[in-house]
Amino acid sequence: MEAKIINPFLEAAVNVLTTMAMVDPTPGKAFVKKDFAAMGDISGIIGITGQAQGSMSISFSGPCILSIVGNLFGVPVGEINEEVRDAVGELTNMICGDARRRLEAENISLQAGTPTVVDGKNHTITHVNRGPRLAVPFETPSGGFVIEVAFNA
Amino acid sequence: MEAKIINPFLEAAVNVLTTMAMVDPTPGKAFVKKDFAAMGDISGIIGITGQAQGSMSISFSGPCILSIVGNLFGVPVGEINEEVRDAVGELTNMICGDARRRLEAENISLQAGTPTVVDGKNHTITHVNRGPRLAVPFETPSGGFVIEVAFNA
Repeated sequence: MEAKIINPFLEAAVNVLTTMAMVDPTPGKAFVKKDFAAMGDISGIIGITGQAQGSMSISFSGPCILSIVGNLFGVPVGEINEEVRDAVGELTNMICGDARRRLEAENISLQAGTPTVVDGKNHTITHVNRGPRLAVPFETPSGGFVIEVAFNA
Repeated sequence: MEAKIINPFLEAAVNVLTTMAMVDPTPGKAFVKKDFAAMGDISGIIGITGQAQGSMSISFSGPCILSIVGNLFGVPVGEINEEVRDAVGELTNMICGDARRRLEAENISLQAGTPTVVDGKNHTITHVNRGPRLAVPFETPSGGFVIEVAFNA
């Protein structure tokens, strides 16, 4: 059940970033330990309910998100501003929606809250939950991002 | 409907912090405008689904959360560490649970994801939603915190 819920979020993130932002992210070593805190310069966070309660976050380095949003907009973006924050919120929504559709096909029904975007140099994200938790760092030519998915057992 | 959903979260935050952490927060001027971004040194975020989809955050200044967690633990706490992050996650859960119980009494049923805690000096929190959004700053003798509640219409 655990991998069955978590893996679709990773697949969805790669799918959304590849198709929407034309980046080809390379996954790194996954972390399952509880004391890992994803670090980034901007993060999208969304809460999940339904057959499992949890949260998903995606944390980007500054250069990585500027490159991704530059691809999305078709023009270079020089700094993290309101448009970049909105784009991170939308990407978070799209990844969560894609994952939920994949899970529906497995008869697992999840609902999602609305996304929250955190903007702050080198912040860390800690998911507070009682069940499985997986963090996967990805690399792109412009820098890294980390996806983290956590659920109550 | 909007105030009916949002106000119980504010009442719950004051109730939880007053009874659990023995602080007596003073509310300041509420913000409803979309471009307000709450700022803090540590934040708890939780996603909400059910009759409305949304998110709630509570962002504390460093001195404020250290005083609150010191009251909770009964011993002074000198820095934001794992125990402080866990306490912020638990406070977020308790505030959301208290608010949901108040709303159940009004026949409004909401579900909650699991909390996520952001740790980073002077980060900002932006809620990405299509409906009402309210931010209320509070002051305590040890510093301030901001509660923000956002829902899709």
